[in-house]
Amino acid sequence: MTSISTIAAFVSADRLWASILAMAEIGATANGGSNRLAFSREDDAGRSLFASWCEEAGLSVSTDAFGNMFARRQGRTDVEPLVIGSHLDTQPKGGRFDGVLGVLGGLEVVRALNDAGLETDRPIVIVNWTNEEGAVLTPMMGSAVFTGALALDEALEEKLPDGRTTRSALDAMKWGRGNHPVGSPMHCYLELHIEQGPILEEEGVAIGVVTGGIGFRRYRIAFTGQEAHAGPTPMALRKDPLVSASRAIVFADALGRSIPEARSTMGTMAVTGGSPNTVAARAEFTLDLRHPDAPAIAQMEENFFAECERIALETRTTVQYEMIADSPPAPFPEPVVSLIEDVTTGLGFSNRRMASGAGHDACNISRLYRTGMIFVPSLGGISHNEAEFTSKEECVAGVRVLANVAHTLLNL
Amino acid sequence: MTSISTIAAFVSADRLWASILAMAEIGATANGGSNRLAFSREDDAGRSLFASWCEEAGLSVSTDAFGNMFARRQGRTDVEPLVIGSHLDTQPKGGRFDGVLGVLGGLEVVRALNDAGLETDRPIVIVNWTNEEGAVLTPMMGSAVFTGALALDEALEEKLPDGRTTRSALDAMKWGRGNHPVGSPMHCYLELHIEQGPILEEEGVAIGVVTGGIGFRRYRIAFTGQEAHAGPTPMALRKDPLVSASRAIVFADALGRSIPEARSTMGTMAVTGGSPNTVAARAEFTLDLRHPDAPAIAQMEENFFAECERIALETRTTVQYEMIADSPPAPFPEPVVSLIEDVTTGLGFSNRRMASGAGHDACNISRLYRTGMIFVPSLGGISHNEAEFTSKEECVAGVRVLANVAHTLLNL
Repeated sequence: MTSISTIAAFVSADRLWASILAMAEIGATANGGSNRLAFSREDDAGRSLFASWCEEAGLSVSTDAFGNMFARRQGRTDVEPLVIGSHLDTQPKGGRFDGVLGVLGGLEVVRALNDAGLETDRPIVIVNWTNEEGAVLTPMMGSAVFTGALALDEALEEKLPDGRTTRSALDAMKWGRGNHPVGSPMHCYLELHIEQGPILEEEGVAIGVVTGGIGFRRYRIAFTGQEAHAGPTPMALRKDPLVSASRAIVFADALGRSIPEARSTMGTMAVTGGSPNTVAARAEFTLDLRHPDAPAIAQMEENFFAECERIALETRTTVQYEMIADSPPAPFPEPVVSLIEDVTTGLGFSNRRMASGAGHDACNISRLYRTGMIFVPSLGGISHNEAEFTSKEECVAGVRVLANVAHTLLNL
Repeated sequence: MTSISTIAAFVSADRLWASILAMAEIGATANGGSNRLAFSREDDAGRSLFASWCEEAGLSVSTDAFGNMFARRQGRTDVEPLVIGSHLDTQPKGGRFDGVLGVLGGLEVVRALNDAGLETDRPIVIVNWTNEEGAVLTPMMGSAVFTGALALDEALEEKLPDGRTTRSALDAMKWGRGNHPVGSPMHCYLELHIEQGPILEEEGVAIGVVTGGIGFRRYRIAFTGQEAHAGPTPMALRKDPLVSASRAIVFADALGRSIPEARSTMGTMAVTGGSPNTVAARAEFTLDLRHPDAPAIAQMEENFFAECERIALETRTTVQYEMIADSPPAPFPEPVVSLIEDVTTGLGFSNRRMASGAGHDACNISRLYRTGMIFVPSLGGISHNEAEFTSKEECVAGVRVLANVAHTLLNL
């Protein structure tokens, strides 16, 4: 049996990089990014290029009823496959790496296996999930349909901005709807992805060993006070909802900073009834609380709303709030996390465990099958942007880890 | 010579109240307020009613080149007159007392003098200033033209929302432009007005002895940070402008509360670039700082912007600001303030000194002539609203003070 390090050695940095750049030409944007919106012609053209590469590598390509693409290399046995992948669709002004690295990294693993002349016990499947970005409709649709979190019939009736259903859009594509079984079982799912955050770059670490998808809860909070003239109204007699909301925001920021791995984001604020010389009537903002552990989110929620009640009492305002989204953490199984960590260390790459702050198809899949993720650095933490960048060396490091983890799992 | 208290005794509560209610019928609104927008037919109808009452009381009525109305009762000598007044125009959904009480209170003083059969040394003039409200164009236009703060020619070319100039609007009115000299000298100016704030009601005090118009400076402040994804971006690496702005607002609120008589108002906030799961790019808000003393405003300004710079440094954001308005305090002369205070106390009314937080014609006039103001309570501090209310007893208390102060000044 070939040693683990040997497989990684068959990974070709130049071939990987050339494939990434070639894919980026489909829907290339003026400032060096890509525009391959899900369900678009560019999406279909990207699928066709990927399929042609897969067929050249000896894989059989199929799609399921929602257009998720599967490229299969047979194993010595017909057991449940190892599935590796991500997505080829992009934001309207997206980058060249988000999703693409995971799909083409999977293809590079297969090409490395081919070059090494290796058969594996298990089959390996490279997957391209439909509409991960959610720049139209909702994010991670394809993997949600795959796991049953989103009903296929419902997903197929969703209307795109041009008025077509996803069904008719997929039916117009060369690589649209096919006969691959929705939700076909797998042994394990692996996804290589750019971090889309600044941590690895900031710490000078090559590989993020992802412990799971962070959970989040999102709220809409409104303080209501009373309009009052800036001049005649003494401070002590005011009921100023913008001051209340500001105090709540300062508290929420400090709360997020006080707990390791927590995030608290207040990204919108709308003030009504005020003017430069009138105290406002109402201030509404959103709060997004994230943490890898569900109890930590619940604790933050409790602390925050207790503080809101205190603030309302002190400022003589009223506060109302509602939860508008709730996505529990999706922890990955420790054996998979440990395997990725050991392989990474064995290859000599610096690494750290980290939760994924953003949602990924892997988070959907992890609710049904064992799952692992590998992160590589994002320059400046920038993503969903034409300026998104991960160097050739950083990309290939991720693929080498992916290759050796895959090879281990393919023979387990 | 008739004693001071005798004049106040000739003030008729019923006559005053009936006049206020009759004026409120012109432009009466569904919810018990009045709509006599400056330059409108209702404004002119209000002027005609006022002029007819003045003529019945033996006054000669004239207007100046900007439509300010003057109703004169001769004195024993032809020296500079005592001028008493305010304005009869209203907000679109204005109340029955704002401005009206000062004009009709002045008329009631003349009626009381008539009933008492008293001549005075000085002439007395009741004034109705044009467009105090500024619900169209700018506030306190008539008194600004009178003092030269606003050039007459410029004011006459201003365009109303219906496209007419103020000149053509005034020329279409019965009581529009006339020959009374603009800026005619006066011995002293007195204005009785509702407080438009909650202090007198809150403290159970009958009369506010106004020490002057509060000054204000107004600023636009913008913090700029960096958009970032709520999930992948750790708290420590964020540059969150909404958190910076919230900290600045909390500071400004505490600053206003820490200084007696100060006001700090942050009535608007606009956040851009953010979303429920994206840190915003920019947060902009307005700040209005008020205090009766100019150095106190300058000190608040210095403290606030020093704090903004500290916040920007700590939050890794940048801050920009500009002053968008600067109106210095308009203190009234101590002898007039003391006289009003002594007369009020002599009449047995509870009273307190207070600065006027809102602007008034009296603030304009005070830049040229000695000026005093008398406040009576506003129910709930509500003004510029159909629900505006001051009781008959509260109104008449103000007019009795006005009458006795006027009588003193008329014979000085």
